[in-house]
Amino acid sequence: MPAASSFSSVVADDAAAIRALLDKRRDAWNRHDMDAFVADLMPDIEWINVVGMRWKGRDTVRRAHAALHTGMMAHSRMLPPELVEMREIAPNVVIVTQFNRLEGVAPRPDGKPYPDDGNLLTMVFVKSRGGWQIAHVRNGHIDKQAAAHDPAKEPSRD
Amino acid sequence: MPAASSFSSVVADDAAAIRALLDKRRDAWNRHDMDAFVADLMPDIEWINVVGMRWKGRDTVRRAHAALHTGMMAHSRMLPPELVEMREIAPNVVIVTQFNRLEGVAPRPDGKPYPDDGNLLTMVFVKSRGGWQIAHVRNGHIDKQAAAHDPAKEPSRD
Repeated sequence: MPAASSFSSVVADDAAAIRALLDKRRDAWNRHDMDAFVADLMPDIEWINVVGMRWKGRDTVRRAHAALHTGMMAHSRMLPPELVEMREIAPNVVIVTQFNRLEGVAPRPDGKPYPDDGNLLTMVFVKSRGGWQIAHVRNGHIDKQAAAHDPAKEPSRD
Repeated sequence: MPAASSFSSVVADDAAAIRALLDKRRDAWNRHDMDAFVADLMPDIEWINVVGMRWKGRDTVRRAHAALHTGMMAHSRMLPPELVEMREIAPNVVIVTQFNRLEGVAPRPDGKPYPDDGNLLTMVFVKSRGGWQIAHVRNGHIDKQAAAHDPAKEPSRD
């Protein structure tokens, strides 16, 4: 489960611009249009996926997703995500974390099912004269079995 | 396996300051000194751990790690990490990704072994007048079984 929403002081115009990009990217995913999906990534983006693969550069990210969308993601749909946090950490730098869920994902190439507990997707946005771009993306499954033992929720022992 | 190192234009003084913080934090982990471990985190840090637990705020991160270090991490040691990338994405904002490995980790509370393929640990550093602080941390296991099917390494089909 994601934590409760906790927004910080991202000004309304910036928040709206970032939300528009997020909507555009979800639409691109669902149309399996990988050129649109990577259009707002920085050329030197770092992307780390749910299983710890690290992809460097927009072209690499596009190629990887193009392969995924002819394979296990071919019939996937990204559901409307739940925004967990949108936080300005420095001038013109905003980190967005959202709870994300896909449906229609085929099994992984190694035969394992794609976990359906949902993902936490983190994106680092940077604003320049050209507008907002994504500098870094990191995705990860939420392990519900582990979540039952969250050490932040244990009685303090120290 | 992490990708080859690829450093970008972080100036030498900043890179040295960040490396010193990384060394200090590894030392704190290995001494199980959680006050020192969280000393350089922003008060409103967002921390997402290897299994997708999301902790918000330095106090929460300290409490969670204090519990871990009396439990499964009590005899753990953080080995010298391999720096994968140190990248300035905006003025005074640097993202560090390192390949990290622990030894001596006990099984998880749910009985599962802690995977030993290593982790990719991402940290977002922000410099202010007080020096560098960590705004965001995200960790994740590297799934070697999945890595054998990296779609970025498939022949292009589009």
